[in-house]
Amino acid sequence: MTQNLEIRALTFDVFGTVMDWRGSIIAEGERFNRDWGLSVNWAAFADAWRGCYQPSMEAVRTGKRPWAILDDLHRESLEALLEQFEVKGLNEEQIDHLNRVWRRLRPWSDVVSGLTRLKQKYTLATLSNGNVALLVNMAKHSRLPWDVILGAEVAQHYKPQPEAYLTTARMLGLRPEQCLMVAAHNGDLDHAASHGFRTAFIYRPTEYGPEQRTDLAPNADFDWIARGFGDLAEQLGC
Amino acid sequence: MTQNLEIRALTFDVFGTVMDWRGSIIAEGERFNRDWGLSVNWAAFADAWRGCYQPSMEAVRTGKRPWAILDDLHRESLEALLEQFEVKGLNEEQIDHLNRVWRRLRPWSDVVSGLTRLKQKYTLATLSNGNVALLVNMAKHSRLPWDVILGAEVAQHYKPQPEAYLTTARMLGLRPEQCLMVAAHNGDLDHAASHGFRTAFIYRPTEYGPEQRTDLAPNADFDWIARGFGDLAEQLGC
Repeated sequence: MTQNLEIRALTFDVFGTVMDWRGSIIAEGERFNRDWGLSVNWAAFADAWRGCYQPSMEAVRTGKRPWAILDDLHRESLEALLEQFEVKGLNEEQIDHLNRVWRRLRPWSDVVSGLTRLKQKYTLATLSNGNVALLVNMAKHSRLPWDVILGAEVAQHYKPQPEAYLTTARMLGLRPEQCLMVAAHNGDLDHAASHGFRTAFIYRPTEYGPEQRTDLAPNADFDWIARGFGDLAEQLGC
Repeated sequence: MTQNLEIRALTFDVFGTVMDWRGSIIAEGERFNRDWGLSVNWAAFADAWRGCYQPSMEAVRTGKRPWAILDDLHRESLEALLEQFEVKGLNEEQIDHLNRVWRRLRPWSDVVSGLTRLKQKYTLATLSNGNVALLVNMAKHSRLPWDVILGAEVAQHYKPQPEAYLTTARMLGLRPEQCLMVAAHNGDLDHAASHGFRTAFIYRPTEYGPEQRTDLAPNADFDWIARGFGDLAEQLGC
């Protein structure tokens, strides 16, 4: 497969592709129920929180509000959801700790070993809507061996705005064709491909839980299709 | 020493503090002399190249020219110096290879082991005027275990402009007081301190060669003073 000779960097979507956000929030939430005497349905809470994700960024993308990092968007959504789910009595420290669950997400089981293999051959960059502090703390928490943290905050544009992809390639000193976008989401890969990136679809069929209906399979002819990061490393000869 | 309890990130000057740019350029240059049939005085060449560094950035700082990354400033200076040193007959590939010597610099001998210790306790960030691609490739070449690449390009301002320091702290999600600037240069530390950073002076008495006259010792009451990164790790309890 000569086409992969030119790839120099792998650029990763993070939430869902690298990290099991839903499972992680449910697992932590169940501990909060026990420790803080709550009775929240954390699966519903996680889904609702993630449901706020695109609308909150859309206000930034459209210029309705100035640039705001994802940590702050998460916090605003969290406050609304605590009210909606009638969670009462948490103090500021608890709310902040809860908001930082995004820094404590667990990676899918193939991630750390797969990234470690891929890192031998390629530059590994985030291309995420997460802000730098969120991604750096997440990486330290889960020992993700990124070479560089890039994406929305550095580009000051949220995916799928073109600048998020193009600034990432430019800062890597590469043409988009030398970058392989790795994601579990068809839309992200479609946008990356439209700017010249190579594409790798990763199956994450339980990202949205047992009833997942979207992104169960690639919907386009992506360059690579893999069952996880170990499989991707294998296919890329790492 | 209770003051270090609050430090969360170490932010590093790179050229001179982490990497022995002069010794590395001389060592590579001597190979170029042999392999390419040149007779360049590479110590003089390295000094002249580094001598172009501040003036080339100053044109960007003052707005005389738009933003330009250090790779491109290095290249412009290199072309002028090849003429000045009467180096003739290099092809584009050789000139580009020579310009990329900055990505192949060697770290001082205490760096990799010191950073590895410091990384267990702190977030390690670059706070360099080098551009992202330069620093990422340098890190991969020498296995520098940065957590995150920040500095001039991400801030779109060269040190010592305040934005270079303040954007780095902000993207780390930290107050300047939670960041420890690590540098072998008094000026860099003075500027960092003026924005609230903690400071660590590292002795690099041969950065500029055997005749070094500047930055031989700290000229202010910095928070830490260390003989190298191993000594710094020791003092910080890593």
